[in-house]
Amino acid sequence: MSLNLTILGCHSATPRVNAHPTSQYLEINNRHFLIDCGEGTQRQMRKYKIGFSKINHIFISHLHGDHFFGLIGLISTFGILNREKDLHIYGPKGIKEVTVLQLKLSKSWTKYNIVFHELSSNKSELIFEDDKVSVHTIPLSHRVYTNGYLFTEKPKLKKLHIENIKQYDEIDTCDYHNLKAGKDFTLSSGEVIPNLKLTIEPSKPKSFAFCSDTEYKPDIVPIIKDVDVLYHEATFLKDREDLCDKTKHSTAEQAASIASQANVGKLIIGHYSSRYNNINDFKNEAQTVFENVELAEAGKRYSIDSFPIQVLN
Amino acid sequence: MSLNLTILGCHSATPRVNAHPTSQYLEINNRHFLIDCGEGTQRQMRKYKIGFSKINHIFISHLHGDHFFGLIGLISTFGILNREKDLHIYGPKGIKEVTVLQLKLSKSWTKYNIVFHELSSNKSELIFEDDKVSVHTIPLSHRVYTNGYLFTEKPKLKKLHIENIKQYDEIDTCDYHNLKAGKDFTLSSGEVIPNLKLTIEPSKPKSFAFCSDTEYKPDIVPIIKDVDVLYHEATFLKDREDLCDKTKHSTAEQAASIASQANVGKLIIGHYSSRYNNINDFKNEAQTVFENVELAEAGKRYSIDSFPIQVLN
Repeated sequence: MSLNLTILGCHSATPRVNAHPTSQYLEINNRHFLIDCGEGTQRQMRKYKIGFSKINHIFISHLHGDHFFGLIGLISTFGILNREKDLHIYGPKGIKEVTVLQLKLSKSWTKYNIVFHELSSNKSELIFEDDKVSVHTIPLSHRVYTNGYLFTEKPKLKKLHIENIKQYDEIDTCDYHNLKAGKDFTLSSGEVIPNLKLTIEPSKPKSFAFCSDTEYKPDIVPIIKDVDVLYHEATFLKDREDLCDKTKHSTAEQAASIASQANVGKLIIGHYSSRYNNINDFKNEAQTVFENVELAEAGKRYSIDSFPIQVLN
Repeated sequence: MSLNLTILGCHSATPRVNAHPTSQYLEINNRHFLIDCGEGTQRQMRKYKIGFSKINHIFISHLHGDHFFGLIGLISTFGILNREKDLHIYGPKGIKEVTVLQLKLSKSWTKYNIVFHELSSNKSELIFEDDKVSVHTIPLSHRVYTNGYLFTEKPKLKKLHIENIKQYDEIDTCDYHNLKAGKDFTLSSGEVIPNLKLTIEPSKPKSFAFCSDTEYKPDIVPIIKDVDVLYHEATFLKDREDLCDKTKHSTAEQAASIASQANVGKLIIGHYSSRYNNINDFKNEAQTVFENVELAEAGKRYSIDSFPIQVLN
């Protein structure tokens, strides 16, 4: 298991009884990220049994309520649950000021550190990196400053081909590290055993791109080229492209066009406007342009290790 | 129907799947008030079919998240639904700054006016009054500046005793206003017909006191004396009075003691700590001091026109 995505909410504008605003829980290469945090996200996390203590990094795309109003409640709950670990929050400039003001007014300073990473660039930039995963911004175009996020696994070490290795008594376990790193092995006779014979290629690093609210923006294609999975908003159908222009959102067809141009493995769409009763219409419209489309639905969990993507629940 | 109370949420600290933070919807003498607004309140309002457009006045007791974090989402949703009427918000100083900052950051200024009534007095004061209802603050004692609210119907006009009136041809419909206001009627003969004979006493004005988070504070008793219904928090049982002292909350027994001293008609308790599995323990403890106790539960609607209070659902 290297990449799972759980949809906590995927509707636009206002929370309703069975329509939750945007939030996603991403597990990638044993890292655990929360992406966007609309009102009620902490309740959705409890409902779908997402461990609060696993979350150390939260990425907020923009400061509209349906992507952000649940953040202060989650921060507060972490405090009530006696969290001690640092919490890193990535989001537009201003996210620190409003969070700190709310904590101040409630006299509820957290005992854990909150590390704010405020964003203001309009160019894609590396904002997180460790030995497992890197995260880059995807500059989007909406009514307020907005970023999507590209999550990419770091290249993995090669795996050992134990059966072949055992043919050479001279290769010791202390040599394994070099083999995993791609080095050939030279026997005492001088014979060179090529690394290819002693190792198995690791699986290709997986990647996931989250593109929240944006107008049709084909200049993001180079950034998200060939990702395994793209989440891209599709707020309207093309019958209301006028509303897309006005509100800076995308149609299902436009989302699919981005997926097609970027040659992604799979497209997941969401952020449906409440004016539509049947979200299958979004899938049908998208599939006129790009075949591999899934509809985001709260509680759905996608396992992205193998294609076709498995919907787990 | 002059006074109905719908519980939207009644648990403390953090929202859980089936435990919603504080919010209540009060209908009193054809006025409609929202009291406190924890995260998820707008979803609860939709669930229990509370018309958004009826709400013109919101009373926030204090700025802890479980009483307040749902407010910005509700304000935002009112905007999305094209509200035009003014919205009056009563709450502690600071509520304007944090609301305005969030609207500014999201570039989502509402088209309707928000009128903030910021409170900072430690004495009970009249904060709302029209021809139907008055609202006074109830200064409480919590970890941050906190008010309860006392809602009182205005005295109603007397009703006409038509059968008796009809015995006097000289009494015309244009005299009815004076009769309702309590005036006697003087016949042309000089005979005075006492008002008591011509009218029926109106029902006694109803009153409801909402006391959110507070330590045991008997000096509120004169303010809430003889109210028909008192909501008073009861976060802990008396086995954990130490936690009440530390967090400035009340036990069920303390809430009942306030009810008893104030000679209220009925006590509703809520704001249960998640450490207790069986909320009936709160009722049992309270009833050792005061008999007429109801447990607040989300979705319960109390009709307070006649005793015993009817729980409608």
